[in-house]
Amino acid sequence: MKLDTAPPRGMKDLLPPEVELRDRASTTILSTYKRYGFRRVETPALENLKLLLGSGGGENEKLIYKVLKRGAKLDAATHGEDDLADLGLRFDLTVPLARYYAHNRAVLPDPFKAIQIGPVWRAERPQKGRFRQFIQCDIDTLGVASEIAEIELILATAAALIALGLEQPRIRVNDRRILAAMATHCGVDAPRHGEFFVVLDKLDKIGRDGVERELLAANYDERAIANLFGFVLPKAPGDSPDQRLERLAKTVPATAEAVEGLRTIVQAVAREGEDLATLEFDPSLVRGMGYYTGPIFEALYGGGTSAIAGGGRYDRMVGRLLGYDVPACGFSIGFERVVSILEERSGGAAPSRERIAFLFDRDDPLTEVVAAAGRLRHGDRVVSLTLKRKNLAKQLDDLAGEGFGAYAMLRPGVESAEIKLLARRAAGGAGTDG
Amino acid sequence: MKLDTAPPRGMKDLLPPEVELRDRASTTILSTYKRYGFRRVETPALENLKLLLGSGGGENEKLIYKVLKRGAKLDAATHGEDDLADLGLRFDLTVPLARYYAHNRAVLPDPFKAIQIGPVWRAERPQKGRFRQFIQCDIDTLGVASEIAEIELILATAAALIALGLEQPRIRVNDRRILAAMATHCGVDAPRHGEFFVVLDKLDKIGRDGVERELLAANYDERAIANLFGFVLPKAPGDSPDQRLERLAKTVPATAEAVEGLRTIVQAVAREGEDLATLEFDPSLVRGMGYYTGPIFEALYGGGTSAIAGGGRYDRMVGRLLGYDVPACGFSIGFERVVSILEERSGGAAPSRERIAFLFDRDDPLTEVVAAAGRLRHGDRVVSLTLKRKNLAKQLDDLAGEGFGAYAMLRPGVESAEIKLLARRAAGGAGTDG
Repeated sequence: MKLDTAPPRGMKDLLPPEVELRDRASTTILSTYKRYGFRRVETPALENLKLLLGSGGGENEKLIYKVLKRGAKLDAATHGEDDLADLGLRFDLTVPLARYYAHNRAVLPDPFKAIQIGPVWRAERPQKGRFRQFIQCDIDTLGVASEIAEIELILATAAALIALGLEQPRIRVNDRRILAAMATHCGVDAPRHGEFFVVLDKLDKIGRDGVERELLAANYDERAIANLFGFVLPKAPGDSPDQRLERLAKTVPATAEAVEGLRTIVQAVAREGEDLATLEFDPSLVRGMGYYTGPIFEALYGGGTSAIAGGGRYDRMVGRLLGYDVPACGFSIGFERVVSILEERSGGAAPSRERIAFLFDRDDPLTEVVAAAGRLRHGDRVVSLTLKRKNLAKQLDDLAGEGFGAYAMLRPGVESAEIKLLARRAAGGAGTDG
Repeated sequence: MKLDTAPPRGMKDLLPPEVELRDRASTTILSTYKRYGFRRVETPALENLKLLLGSGGGENEKLIYKVLKRGAKLDAATHGEDDLADLGLRFDLTVPLARYYAHNRAVLPDPFKAIQIGPVWRAERPQKGRFRQFIQCDIDTLGVASEIAEIELILATAAALIALGLEQPRIRVNDRRILAAMATHCGVDAPRHGEFFVVLDKLDKIGRDGVERELLAANYDERAIANLFGFVLPKAPGDSPDQRLERLAKTVPATAEAVEGLRTIVQAVAREGEDLATLEFDPSLVRGMGYYTGPIFEALYGGGTSAIAGGGRYDRMVGRLLGYDVPACGFSIGFERVVSILEERSGGAAPSRERIAFLFDRDDPLTEVVAAAGRLRHGDRVVSLTLKRKNLAKQLDDLAGEGFGAYAMLRPGVESAEIKLLARRAAGGAGTDG
């Protein structure tokens, strides 16, 4: 019987070159974050369903993979999904981190600065470049109410992106309190804020006209919409983000505290990172998650309009678990998106002279072969034992394709092996220069 | 409402020092394996249940976490578990690797030498030191029928254990074909071999008398049992494993091929690794998994009698998926067991002078603080911004406990910061020497 050998729908096998690129990327990110004082933690892939549901994860809660209860009785028609499942695979790293903090806070440093790199699962409709298991890569600071948390998160994330070769990231910041005050000022009632922001969030994609059309269709007032664009869009070509921020603070006094916070963040980051990254106030930035309470931010790269990293302050999530609020703030790199940018630009690893295929014949004494290979293997040098094939030219070509830059063979009667270089593989061509 | 914040039953949150020790261990293992020419691959955590069931995983198949089908109809009493679930969390890395190889072989090197490091899940009864999510750490060679595969796996695994500081591992080898021929020679029919081996496997734990008692109780012949011990136990104090292997080959000619193979393995490994590890034939070694077909091996450490690594040849597993057999062989380090040995001996990381806590006051200008900290942060040095607390002595003590070896503060009116060393924290004591 032959079985289907494809991975489950929407999931992915990773080949060695893909894993190696990912490992290099996560090592780079991790070592950058560590230099800012963050430390890696881990939580289990599974969480109690009760924790995951109602956590403010919005649409993601509908995409949870639920795990069948062990020994669940399945004999009654009255059973619903909730009777059948008690565990679920995590859909992000923020909800598990809040639980982790609530559970372990007595033994954690205060403030707690966490790194998390790990898979999450969402049963989304499969589509190009989107997978049902994917890696998230987060830093979070718990226990810091001051803007120093945002500043450190933004500087560390920008440094990580730059270390990956994603230079000059553009970071946009806004504040949920500014959005709320702005909407109220425009005459939108608090209960309708959420819907209003969902449309505003599309500004990048559908433009001013699209947003206007959708807001009118949703029965928002024409003057409210004109007002909104007055804050969100530049008045004239030279109208800078800083000028818009000042105007906002003057026109809508309720934004004063949030504007002051953003000013602090923008100034500190600008001084530290002005040559490396740009940071700009963007009053149209919304970020989807329901749990944000203060500053929100995202990073763009190159000409792209979709974020490669996003985050913000969520001061009320831990309170749900602990009974009292703990200030919290995080920034998450979209690891899969970053990896796909790196894959596009990478030409594959060049064969290295420090990767040696040790070729042996069926008749060679194995003990000699193993000993000779062992003598060649030192430092970080790779020495891989490989049975010689009949078509040696083809085999050498394949080996060059696998990144081997040299090969070695036993020298009969002599203790040492002979090393020859492999030519860099041309398209379809083969050869040795040793 | 307060929710339960413990991780799910049998699962574990990892604190920063635990993660750091694990990261060091997996980096060490990975870099050792790479030097032997293995390359890391990854498969999804979830697999189709059809693949996991009937894969030769024995008891582990009963411990699979099954995932509720999306949108499964739950309204009929006739539904069984198989109608409700179509995916399961992997219970090991070998079954997914066989699927991965069958699916991707066209683009994989031949032979294929894989590293896998990742979590697996088993719904076992929770007990001390056993968790329902744990890391496995495997190397496998697919496409090599010769003993060179076993030799490389054993040398690479021994090198990895030694690099971790687990020096002088003792490796025991046997061969499933030797076990079968020995049992047949002792008068045990093939259908009863499995049961016979299960009892023999307990020799380390229940001793000769225990094994004899259990075999008699299971109605095995007294002479068969005496015969068995003639092969399995030393005849006299000086009776070496090599001598037992020779005796076996002479007395039971059906073992000849397998014995010759083991001789090759033992000789090649002994020459390469004699000062580093010991390798011995042990005719009582069984290894639990049903899928092994040839040589089997395990590594012990110190005075321990339970394995810290185990593996063997499984030449028929890929055939189930591909329609034809592919020679395959693997060695798996028990990562959790290794980590617990390393944790016992580690006294925790000593505070490092290259980990600096940058203390600031609420009144310090944040932009200055961030800039001064940025100037200190270079190379691998950690600089972590930390708000000064009222009780500075206590705070410095806490920081030393978190591995900070120094702290810095703004020097008013001067661009640079002042660095002071933190004293190594004594039990309950605090202090600075800067």
